[in-house]
Amino acid sequence: MELLRPWLELEGHAVSNTGWTRSPLLADTINEAKAGHELTVTTFSLLYAADFADRLEHQILPALHAGSIVLADRYMYTAFARNRVMGADPAWTRQVFGFALVPDLVLYLEIDVEHLVPRVLEGKGMDYWESGMHLALGTDIFDSFVRYQRRLIAEYNALGREFGFVTIDARRPVDAIQSDLRTHVAMYLASARRRRRPQPEKALGRSRA
Amino acid sequence: MELLRPWLELEGHAVSNTGWTRSPLLADTINEAKAGHELTVTTFSLLYAADFADRLEHQILPALHAGSIVLADRYMYTAFARNRVMGADPAWTRQVFGFALVPDLVLYLEIDVEHLVPRVLEGKGMDYWESGMHLALGTDIFDSFVRYQRRLIAEYNALGREFGFVTIDARRPVDAIQSDLRTHVAMYLASARRRRRPQPEKALGRSRA
Repeated sequence: MELLRPWLELEGHAVSNTGWTRSPLLADTINEAKAGHELTVTTFSLLYAADFADRLEHQILPALHAGSIVLADRYMYTAFARNRVMGADPAWTRQVFGFALVPDLVLYLEIDVEHLVPRVLEGKGMDYWESGMHLALGTDIFDSFVRYQRRLIAEYNALGREFGFVTIDARRPVDAIQSDLRTHVAMYLASARRRRRPQPEKALGRSRA
Repeated sequence: MELLRPWLELEGHAVSNTGWTRSPLLADTINEAKAGHELTVTTFSLLYAADFADRLEHQILPALHAGSIVLADRYMYTAFARNRVMGADPAWTRQVFGFALVPDLVLYLEIDVEHLVPRVLEGKGMDYWESGMHLALGTDIFDSFVRYQRRLIAEYNALGREFGFVTIDARRPVDAIQSDLRTHVAMYLASARRRRRPQPEKALGRSRA
C-alpha cells in the first residue's frame, strides 16, 4: 500500500488512504474493549461497523467526491471473514454493512499459513487477537494462531470467489507483489477511462495486508 | 420504572433494570460523539446498536438466565423510531438489531407533544438532541422540539401497531399510569404462570420514559 500510493500520484491521480480501525471516534473504545477481552461477537461486529461507517462518511465519501482514488487497506470483507470465524451469522454481517460502498476493485493478497507464520514472527510477532486466542482454540498461542488464520484464509478464499476478488499470490517477494498490484490497478484504470465515467472515481479495496 | 421495580420485588420477583446508552463500554464514546455534533445517521445507529448489544449480552441475558424479570426503560424500538426520523432505512435498522431478544411485553407510554412540552420544561429542559436540532428542522429549539417529537411520536404509534405494544395513556398523573402499568404486568405474569413456562422468565420493554 505504501508503494502503491506514490506510484499512483506520479501517474497524476489524487489518492487517499484509509485503514481499518483508524477512525478517531472509536479507536480508543476498540482498544479499551480489546484490552478487557470481554467483547462478544455481536458487540465486536457492531463496533467495527460503526468505526467503518464513520470513516466511510468522513474520509472515503468526501475523498471520492473530490475526485480521489481511495486505497483502503482492508475493507468490509475483513469483517465478513472475522465475524464468521467468530461465529456471527454471515447474513447478518452483510446486512449490517449494507450501507457500505462496493469497491470497484478488490485486490486480495492470498497467503497460506506456512508463509504467513515467518512473516508475522519477523514482524510484530503474534498478538492475542491475531492469534484468535479469544476463541479459545488452544492455550498455545502458536497453535491457536495457525488454526485461527487457517480458518480466516479459508473464509477469505470463499469471499474472493463470491465477490470476484483479484487474487495475487502474496507468498512471493514484495517486488513481485507490487508489480502485480500495479498491473491490475493500471488495467482497471484504463478500462474505467475507456468507459469515460464521471467523478467520483473508484474505490480500491485490499483485503489482506 | 422506579415505582415498578419495588412493587415486583414485593411480589416476590427478582428484577433487573436496564436503560438505554448505559453500557460502560460505549457511554463515553457516545457522549463525546454527541458533543462533537458530527455523527451521521449510520454511525449513530451502529453505535447505539453496539451499546445495546453490550448491555444485552452482559446484563439482560445473564439476568434472564438467573431467573429475573428484566425491566428495560427503552429498548430497540427507540432506535427504530429515531433512526427512521433521522433518515435511515427502516429495513436496515431492523436487520442491524436482528440479534436482539424480542420482549415479552412492551408497555408504550403514549403522550402527545402538547402534554410533553410542559413536562420537559418542568424537568431537565429541552436539549439539543431531544429537540432534533441535528436535523436542522428549525433554528428555534422550541419549534424544532415540537416538529421532531411529533415525528417521533408518529413513528412510535406506527411501531406500536406493528409490534403490538400495550399502549398506556401517559397524559394522566403518575399514579394513574403506574396503576395501569401494574395491571398489565400482573396480567402478563398471570398468563405466563398459567402457561407454566420454565426459566428464563420474561423481558419487559417500555419504549418511552
